[in-house]
This record gives sequence, C-alpha cells and structure tokens, in this order.
Amino acid sequence: MRSFNRGALDLRPVTLTPGITLHAEGSTQVEFGHTRVLVTCSVEDRVPPHLMGKGSGWVTAEYGMLPRSTHTRSPREAAKGKQTGRTLEIQRLIGRALRAAVDLPGLGVRTFTLDCDVLQADGGTRTAAITGAYVALALALRKLHKSGVMKTMPKLLPLAAVSVGVVNGEVRVDLDYEEDSSADVDLNLVATGDGRIVEVQGTAEHKMFDRKTLDVMLDAGLAAIRQLTEAQAKVLGV
Amino acid sequence: MRSFNRGALDLRPVTLTPGITLHAEGSTQVEFGHTRVLVTCSVEDRVPPHLMGKGSGWVTAEYGMLPRSTHTRSPREAAKGKQTGRTLEIQRLIGRALRAAVDLPGLGVRTFTLDCDVLQADGGTRTAAITGAYVALALALRKLHKSGVMKTMPKLLPLAAVSVGVVNGEVRVDLDYEEDSSADVDLNLVATGDGRIVEVQGTAEHKMFDRKTLDVMLDAGLAAIRQLTEAQAKVLGV
Amino acid sequence: MRSFNRGALDLRPVTLTPGITLHAEGSTQVEFGHTRVLVTCSVEDRVPPHLMGKGSGWVTAEYGMLPRSTHTRSPREAAKGKQTGRTLEIQRLIGRALRAAVDLPGLGVRTFTLDCDVLQADGGTRTAAITGAYVALALALRKLHKSGVMKTMPKLLPLAAVSVGVVNGEVRVDLDYEEDSSADVDLNLVATGDGRIVEVQGTAEHKMFDRKTLDVMLDAGLAAIRQLTEAQAKVLGV
Amino acid sequence: MRSFNRGALDLRPVTLTPGITLHAEGSTQVEFGHTRVLVTCSVEDRVPPHLMGKGSGWVTAEYGMLPRSTHTRSPREAAKGKQTGRTLEIQRLIGRALRAAVDLPGLGVRTFTLDCDVLQADGGTRTAAITGAYVALALALRKLHKSGVMKTMPKLLPLAAVSVGVVNGEVRVDLDYEEDSSADVDLNLVATGDGRIVEVQGTAEHKMFDRKTLDVMLDAGLAAIRQLTEAQAKVLGV
Amino acid sequence: MRSFNRGALDLRPVTLTPGITLHAEGSTQVEFGHTRVLVTCSVEDRVPPHLMGKGSGWVTAEYGMLPRSTHTRSPREAAKGKQTGRTLEIQRLIGRALRAAVDLPGLGVRTFTLDCDVLQADGGTRTAAITGAYVALALALRKLHKSGVMKTMPKLLPLAAVSVGVVNGEVRVDLDYEEDSSADVDLNLVATGDGRIVEVQGTAEHKMFDRKTLDVMLDAGLAAIRQLTEAQAKVLGV
Amino acid sequence: MRSFNRGALDLRPVTLTPGITLHAEGSTQVEFGHTRVLVTCSVEDRVPPHLMGKGSGWVTAEYGMLPRSTHTRSPREAAKGKQTGRTLEIQRLIGRALRAAVDLPGLGVRTFTLDCDVLQADGGTRTAAITGAYVALALALRKLHKSGVMKTMPKLLPLAAVSVGVVNGEVRVDLDYEEDSSADVDLNLVATGDGRIVEVQGTAEHKMFDRKTLDVMLDAGLAAIRQLTEAQAKVLGV
Repeated sequence: MRSFNRGALDLRPVTLTPGITLHAEGSTQVEFGHTRVLVTCSVEDRVPPHLMGKGSGWVTAEYGMLPRSTHTRSPREAAKGKQTGRTLEIQRLIGRALRAAVDLPGLGVRTFTLDCDVLQADGGTRTAAITGAYVALALALRKLHKSGVMKTMPKLLPLAAVSVGVVNGEVRVDLDYEEDSSADVDLNLVATGDGRIVEVQGTAEHKMFDRKTLDVMLDAGLAAIRQLTEAQAKVLGV
Repeated sequence: MRSFNRGALDLRPVTLTPGITLHAEGSTQVEFGHTRVLVTCSVEDRVPPHLMGKGSGWVTAEYGMLPRSTHTRSPREAAKGKQTGRTLEIQRLIGRALRAAVDLPGLGVRTFTLDCDVLQADGGTRTAAITGAYVALALALRKLHKSGVMKTMPKLLPLAAVSVGVVNGEVRVDLDYEEDSSADVDLNLVATGDGRIVEVQGTAEHKMFDRKTLDVMLDAGLAAIRQLTEAQAKVLGV
Repeated sequence: MRSFNRGALDLRPVTLTPGITLHAEGSTQVEFGHTRVLVTCSVEDRVPPHLMGKGSGWVTAEYGMLPRSTHTRSPREAAKGKQTGRTLEIQRLIGRALRAAVDLPGLGVRTFTLDCDVLQADGGTRTAAITGAYVALALALRKLHKSGVMKTMPKLLPLAAVSVGVVNGEVRVDLDYEEDSSADVDLNLVATGDGRIVEVQGTAEHKMFDRKTLDVMLDAGLAAIRQLTEAQAKVLGV
Repeated sequence: MRSFNRGALDLRPVTLTPGITLHAEGSTQVEFGHTRVLVTCSVEDRVPPHLMGKGSGWVTAEYGMLPRSTHTRSPREAAKGKQTGRTLEIQRLIGRALRAAVDLPGLGVRTFTLDCDVLQADGGTRTAAITGAYVALALALRKLHKSGVMKTMPKLLPLAAVSVGVVNGEVRVDLDYEEDSSADVDLNLVATGDGRIVEVQGTAEHKMFDRKTLDVMLDAGLAAIRQLTEAQAKVLGV
Repeated sequence: MRSFNRGALDLRPVTLTPGITLHAEGSTQVEFGHTRVLVTCSVEDRVPPHLMGKGSGWVTAEYGMLPRSTHTRSPREAAKGKQTGRTLEIQRLIGRALRAAVDLPGLGVRTFTLDCDVLQADGGTRTAAITGAYVALALALRKLHKSGVMKTMPKLLPLAAVSVGVVNGEVRVDLDYEEDSSADVDLNLVATGDGRIVEVQGTAEHKMFDRKTLDVMLDAGLAAIRQLTEAQAKVLGV
Repeated sequence: MRSFNRGALDLRPVTLTPGITLHAEGSTQVEFGHTRVLVTCSVEDRVPPHLMGKGSGWVTAEYGMLPRSTHTRSPREAAKGKQTGRTLEIQRLIGRALRAAVDLPGLGVRTFTLDCDVLQADGGTRTAAITGAYVALALALRKLHKSGVMKTMPKLLPLAAVSVGVVNGEVRVDLDYEEDSSADVDLNLVATGDGRIVEVQGTAEHKMFDRKTLDVMLDAGLAAIRQLTEAQAKVLGV
C-alpha cells in the first residue's frame, strides 16, 4: 500500500499556501504529502553580467535543505562552506525550468530569485520546489504589475514538476522517500499543463530501462502535471 | 505607538508550536510577533573530541537565516561559502545558553544539536531562537526518556531570552526590527524564570549608558523572561 | 551543412586511443571530431565510507576542462578554489553512468576513479567522456585480471553516450559547439549498445518540446550509441 | 594567592609602549601581566560601501593570535583558511567599542583599521587589545592632525576594557588564564574613564549569577577601567 | 644506466609539437622523455591592476597536473579547492622566467597567460613547462603579428630550462622521476641560449653542496639549455 | 649611501633575543636592521603521515606577516581565507633549510614547528626568519635535552641565510626594502658557517646575470653567513 492510501498514478495531497511570508514580493509554502518547501521570490533591479545592456530580465533559483529536514541530520552547507553537487544540480534545474516558462525580455532589467528551502523532506523536494516556485513567481509578477512598477504582465506559462519511478516493476508517480530509495528508475519531469516538456531527467538507479517503460512513465508524469497546474490555477484564482 | 499596540515593557504576542516537524527528536516553531524561527533538536550518539571518554553529553546550536527572511534579500551563506561573524556569534550564544540550563553529565554520551532557522525576521531572532530551543530540547529529552533510551530525565532549568533597548530615551522590551534599528542601547538577556542570569550582552549602539539605565533594563528583561518561561511551561504542560 | 560534411543523424569522426598514458591502470584518449578528452582509470584498494565492510567496490568520476580547451580562456577551477555547478553535475553523471554498467560487488574492495580531462572542447564533452571512460574502465579491469589481482572479470555492459538536439527544427545527433549554442532542445543519452537506457537528460533550451519530438530524438540517440559501442568493441578487440 | 601577588580587585602590571612599529600611523604594545598584544592603527582614504557618499569615517578592527602565543600551539588561521567564531566575535567587539568612543563624522572619508595581534596570551587578550587600541587610535589621529592632513582633532573619549570574574565565590578583576579557566562567571566590560558603559558581556561559565553579583562585578570593573584610562593618559601625555 | 641509455650530461629525447590545440593563440606539447606537458598561450586585452594606465603588457602562467599524471593518483586541486604550495611556486617561477625573456612594454595592453598542464609526469615537469612555454608564447606573438593586431614583433630572448642534480656523487642533467627521488642535490636552471641566467634554484635534498659542485652543475645546465634552445629554434623555423 | 651607513658587503645591525616568549619550547626575536621577526619553536609528539612508523622526527615552518608590518597595510591572510603563493614559498623554504641542518632521525617521533611571524618588514624577512629559526630550534632541542625528554642532543649544523643583490651594478648583501625594490638581481642564500650550501635561489628581477656575477654574489653571501653564524653562536653561548 502506498502512503496516503493512494494508487500508483495518484499524487500525494498537495497544499499550496500563497503569501506565507511578510517581506518577499511573492511566496508560497508547497506541500507534497510530508514534503514541505518554503519558496520566496525576491526581485532586484539588476541583471547578471551576460545580460547587461540587453534590456532583458533573469530568473534564478537557490535551493537548500534545513539540516534536520531529513530523517537523520545532514551537515549545514553554510557551516561546511560548500554546497553539495546535488544542491547545485537542483538549483540549476529549478532556474532553467522557470526561465523556460517566462518571457524573459518582458521582465525588464530585473532578477527574480526563487529561494526554495526544504523545511521537511519526504521525497520529491525538487519537483515540489518547481511547482511552488511557479506560484511564488506568478505572485511576484502580479504584485509588481498591480503596484504599477511593471506596465504589462509578462507571459508566464503554467508549469509544474513531478517525479515518476519504477518500484517493484510498477510505474508510480510522486514517490515518497521510502519509495524513492528502492526505485529501479527515477525520472523527474517538468512540463506545462498542456503537455509540452521543459525538462526530462531519467536515471537507472538499479536497473536499466527500455523505451516502452520510458513511454509509460512520461504518460503518467504528464497526467500528474496537469493536475498540479490545476491546483496552482485554483490558488492563483485564474 | 509600538507594534501590536503594546506598552514599553510588553512582549509581542508569543506563539510556541511544538512538534512542528516530522523527523527531529524535538522541534518547535517560535514566533515573537512577526519574527518566526523553526527550531529542531537532533540527537546523535557521539560527543565532540574534548569530551571523549568523559561520559558527559553536549549541547550545541547552529543558526541560519533564510535569504529572504529579511526586508531585502541577503546572500545565502551556503552559496558564499562562509558564515558571517554575526551568525557564528549568535550560534555560540545559543549553545552556551542551553548548556548552562542542562545537566550535561546527565545527557550521557550524546550530542543535542539545536538548529535554529529564521523563516521570517522582525527583530529579536536570537532571543526567540533561545526561547524556542529550550522547548525543542525539553521535547527531545522527554522523547528519549519516554522511549526508554534515557533512564532518568536530566535536570533542565526553565530558560528564556529577551531583548531590551533604549529607544527615544525609553526602556522597552522585545524590540521589533524598526525599534532595534534606532535604539541607543541594545541588550540581550538570557535567564531562568526565577531571575538567575545566564548571559547578559549590552551594547551602546549610538549612546553610552550608565549603571542606572542598565539596572532598569535588567529589571525589565527579567520580568519579561518570567512571562516567557510561563508560556514555555504551558506548551510543555508542566 | 554540418561540420565534417555529415548528415543530421551522423556522428563526427570518432577516435579512441587506448593506453595513452604510462601510469594509469587504464586510459584512453577519446575524440568526437575536435572534442578531445583524456580519460584515465585509477584503482585504489579502498571504498567510500558508505560501502565499508560490505565487500563491494565503487566507481567514481572527476571531470575538468583545461582552461584553454574552450574558444576563450575560462578561469582554472583549482585557482578559483571551486568547481562550478556544471562540473559537479557532469562528473556525477559520468560516475552514475559507469556504475550502472558494471557489477559493483564483483569489483572487490576497490575504487575505480575515472578522471576525464577535456584537452579540447567542441561540444559533447560529457558524452565523449562517458564513451571514453567505458574503454578506460574496461582496460583497467582487464589489467587487474591479467595480473591475477582479480580472479574473475566483473561483468561490464557496453555503454556509450551521445548528445541529440533540435537545431532549426531538425533532429541531429552529436552536436558540435556551434550547433549546441543554437539548439532549441538539448538531450544527452546514455545507453547500452542494445538499447537499454541508463540516463536521459533533455532540456528545452529555447523551445519546449512534445512527446513526438522526444521520440525521434531517442531513436536517433540509441542508433548513434550502437555505433559508438561498436567502435569501443573494435578498440578493445572484443 | 593571585599572580603578581595582587588582591582580588587589583590589575596585573600594565605596560603601554607607544610607537612600537615603524610603518603604522599609530601603534602600541600593551601588556596586562604576561598577556602581550601588538596593536597598529592603519589609515586608508576609503570607507566601506554603506558609508560611501556620506562624508563619515569608519573604525574597524582585526584580531589574531600567533599560533604559539598560547600554552599549546593552535593551528594558524591563515593556514586553515578560516577565522574561528571566537576571533570574529572578538574583532567585532573591538571595532564596536572604538566606534562608540570616536566621533565618526569627524574622521573624514577615512577608515582606521586596528590590527590587534596577540604575541603572548595569558587571559584578557580582548580587554588588553581594546585598551591598547585606544592608544594606537589616539596616536594615529594625533599624527594626522599634526601633519595637517586633518584640520581638527575629532573627539575621542578615553576608553578601556577589563575582565571581571567570579572565582571560588570571589569577584576578581583582570583574570589570568588559569583563573579564567576555572571562573564560574566571566564578564568583559568596556567603558569610559568616567563610568559610562559601552559594552557589557557577562557569561555564566559554570554557575548562573544573580543581580547582586552582577552589581559587584560592574563596580569592580568600572573602578579598574578608571585606572586603565589613567595609564593611557600618562602614556599619551594628556 | 640512465633511462634512454644516455650519459650523465645528456638530455632525454626532447619533442616539441607546435600548434597542438585548436583554440589557443599559441600552443605546444613538450616532451622530455616520458614527461609530457601541454602548454597553451591565451591572449586577453587587459592587464593586471598594477599595470593599468602604463601601456605595458604582462605575461603570467598557471600550472597544473592531471590527477593521474603521476605514479599514484593525486587529489584534483579543483576538488580540494586549493592549489598546493608546490603548484603556486612552480607557476610563479614559469611566469617570472618568461617575463624576463620578453619586452613587456612591447606587448601592448595585453596579458599572455601560459597554461602548463602536465599530462604525464616523469621528473622535470617545471623545466619542460618553461621550455614549452617559450615556444607557445613565440607562436602567439607571431600569430598576433601576422594578423596585424601587433604592428611590431616584441623582442623575445630564446629561453629554456633544465634540471641538474647530484646522484650517487655524479652530476647529471635532466633527471627523471627515479633519479630525482634519490638525488642529493636538485638544481633548476633557467637561462638564455647564450648563457645568461634568469633563475637558479638549488636545494640540498639530502646532502649540502660546496661551491665547486655548484660550478659543475651550472656548466652542465647551461650546456643543456643551449641544446634546448636549438630544438626550439628548429621547431619555430628560425 | 646605504642604510645604517654601511658598505656594500656589510650586514645591517643584527640582534637576536632568545627566550622572547613564555610558552614556546624555544623562541627568539631576530632583527636585521628594521626587519623584526618573532620565531617560536613548538614541539609536538607526532609526525606527519609519511613518517609514521619510521621512528624519525620532522621539522616544519609556517610564515606570516602582520598586516601592518609593511609600508602600507596588506590584507590579513586569515581574513582572506588563503595564504599567498609568496607565503607558501617562503615557509617551504624555511622548513627545507632547517631540515637540512638537523639530524631528523635523532629527533625521535616529534615535530618541531617553527612559526616565523614578521612584526616589522624592511627587506630580508625570509633570511632573518631562517637565521632566527636556527636559534629557536637550537633552544628547543636544548630544553628537551636538559629536561631529560631527549636522551642525546641531535646533531644540528650552524646555519643562517642572507640576501644578496645587484643594485646599480654593485653587488650588495642584506638588502633593505628600498634596495630590494630596485635590484636587478635578487639572490637568497642559505648555508652553514663553513660554506656548505643548503639553498641558493637567484632571480633576474630586471636584468639577466652571468656566471661571473653569480660567483661574486655567492662569495659575498657566504662571507655574510659566516658572520651570522658567529652572532648565533654568541647568543647560544657555544
């Protein structure tokens, strides 16, 4: 039996709490079951060097896990003085995903930084982070537009992410930590609500996979992403 | 008028939410007005080198602020590869304070690590962290005792912390960010509920202070700490 | 017209030079067109902490680019004191890929480190590195077996990697630097010669992609990988 | 019996040697008994970012201990690539203390850096450093004034620091290393000669303390600071 | 018998392969026996801060060893986050040597960076690097001159380097790794083809040496350097 | 005219103050004119990994400059988190020099660390450091022998170091900072009192040099070193 008493292709209960913090231009707390990520979107009137003088904006992300968000305590990256390869890989993925969804030139000379901090981890922290980051970014854009700072709302495509895996020979979506640890294949999928793929990352953890399995995983993932973008739309009131 | 419509010697609304996370042996979310800190207590069966072979336990703390817990975004310490002097100073203070309150030999060969992560900052993050860390530590000890891992409950003195300042010539307790920025004197006090002092740190920010002002600040601080230890007792059901 | 006068689904000229260095247990220089990577395999009689006492071996990889392997000089990572996120991501990928291909318990208590250093870069350095690393690892295993250090040859599945992209609406394999810079989609595929997938990483660089495009890319990639494993077999004389 | 055959409220022999180095704008060697600190004051025509364009000056401090200034050799911080939390805490304290004593706008667009390097440690290095730093800063200001670089002498309040502790139930000032190691309470006090407090930092090392003990410690500390400012005045010839 | 069947004052076979890489303004692979170093020369239109506004150019060098260029694998400096003292010492030496040979003002506002990466090490990597760096720099200057970027060829003195040692009481030039490990004295000499010395660094590894031995080593070294500059001239066609 | 009114081959006034610190096993302050270096020798009962189980001892050195030991303030290496190449090069030189002078097996399983900290710099800090380190090491050995920790005194050859340069065409010994800055050639020589060379490092700063000039510099250096070893002998009372 899966956690939350769900079927192989069901998501865990998804909760999106918008406006969770006081200071950020946009924020949300996203929960995929017991996985809980706090996402804030901060806006600054500057762009990275490679965009200077081009009039375009930028979206970037940073990711972190609180030391005891996990089953056993992990060392604090700030204390070690070094982010792990896993952290860098995840935050590069989040940034790439959101940049693909937004019209960068429409942002003006601004950088939108999405800080995704995992308060509690139970598998799927990167997909929850992307799903929440979409909401935080949408809220920040809306705020800048409402306050008149941005004249026109830049285009932002509804985007979410989900993990898919093969566990005991069965394709399942939204794995929790226990399932993730024993999965033969682990695939993370980022896509729009209407099925256009932004990122696919599939890894044979214990067992190589064939084209047919990949097809089943992609179908399952895209269906789950459609549900996630519906939850986002509801929270954003669109 | 002060925030939350309160008098000079009043605390902001204090909320302590115990058991806020799934994995930690003890945890609490502590709020002093808009300041919100997530504290977890992790237990490991090892002690630092200087205690090896002595049979005593250890309590230590780490402190961090989420990048957008503040009014404007601060760089992530993990990304900079370095904790600031302020961070190190605060986590040393938290660790010292809790070690003074607990009977270290009674902990056995164990390290209790208090991770204090600021989700939202509005002044007084270090005093909120200490006040919450007491609760998280108490819960962790109780859990180990209940589960039989620890035969006897080690002695733990009720302990809390509060900031006191001189703002516009008036002594005030529990300053928020705006008051803190304009205070002439800033004093952090850690003490037990019955008035024994564990730590006093007073700094002339803009104006030196005399013995008499210090006396008034200490009285105000100790009274506020008494209230905080009552709030802790209520949450812990003791 | 593509470089080396080739069709959309053709590889660049591939050269594998085994035994290129004196000291390493296995080594090869791999060239995909102008991309040139030196791969060495070093064997040490120790395993990382998480494998201690389990009797199994380990395969890991490190990746680096010489500062002037690229069109303009990049800062030396050793001098900056930090590996970039891209470097860490690539070396994690290489290590994962090779671990999937080899029977780890069969390695004994040994770590095989694959150092992949890019001498000249023209796109596809990570796929060239994986393709070359397979050869270097195979040579190292053979050497240990021949010298009697290893009683039985551990199982190693023929494995290679290739990049696939969508350039000007056309699916192409083995992109060079210029094509890579302007591709709408960039996909890296690691698989065995008989079409079992080890890793798939597809990214919408400028344009999201649909399931159908993904299918075409996967077919093209698997076909190219088959050719690469044939080149490897020839060099290894199997 | 205390070291140097002194009473509970007596200082160790204090020696201030002004002008101890050739290059610095101001310098002094300060000795509290066997504790010996070399302090230099360097002046640069720039201010930190937060003061740019405001016309005000800045005072900052750095602190270090020679590896074998202590009983057993400590690792060199430059070799470890990291300053300890203790070092950062002390240099922040020194900087804050001196900034409280000087009229920052009167300094002009200049940064005065006080380098406090401990040549020999026997307790009280931070209080000796502050006491010496006052002299080095006064000498640097005088030099700039004499040479005509500064038209008017900025106001500088006589300032010194001392440690106070409770050892075997007795309040003592200016603890040496041995006393410091066994003290129940450790308090560092920075104040002007006429009793205005700049910083008070009291810590229960082994035993919490009450208001009455704190009062006795503060009285003892302020009296000792008066003597230290007299020694400073003598050396400065004022 | 020495490696390559040579006499005490003979060099190992020397191979200089110019133009070994595609992107660099100048490049060469240099081999002293089994020691193999890849040298590239990169040109950038900027100079270090201390030369700004002076119209002069700069030559600098960086040095690295591939992890498995040595008999046993050494940790990758980029992964450790730190270059060793040996690395820094060698790259400072290479930079100094080349700067002595070239007319810096004649370079214009340009920095020439010589990256010397050891692909395979068997003693004498620093002397091979200097010898190859001369060729790479000469090629880069020639390229800039030919393309019209530089109006006049700056003066560049023919320069090479060699190691000399005392092994078993015998003075030998161009030591390989095995000889180097057992040498009593180790001397590195950088000079022009006509015997003007740029750098001499002699170290008593196991046995101090007298003036007379030093004289013999210098004679032997200068003679070998003459041969090396002839090999350089041949490759450069001058 | 040279500083201290001296001839081309004269040393600056040399002062060696033994026993300058309380805690170290051996210590000295060495002055070459205005250059002032504090050297301590610390003894620990352990050896570096490469000597474990061999019964031999080790001598190593660390070098640092106080930030304002120089004409203008240099950044503190501990604060930058990195030692410069110059620092590493110098401390490697000091360690090598002292190891050449002492009978390492005679030291027992012990490491002698020579901390050389420059309090005031005016040229020749590395040669002063070596000259002082010899005294500090000799004192530490004597102390261990006297106290019975070491049964027999290990052999230690009298050793000193001096700089020699060519300034305005004239060979001079023991250059001060001003001379050093304008020297055409800079040579550092480490040798025993009876003329056996331990280390020679000559660099053409602005002008290459021939064999004849090198000969003159070596003669001058060895004569100066003889004087330095006489000063050492006097201080050590041998």
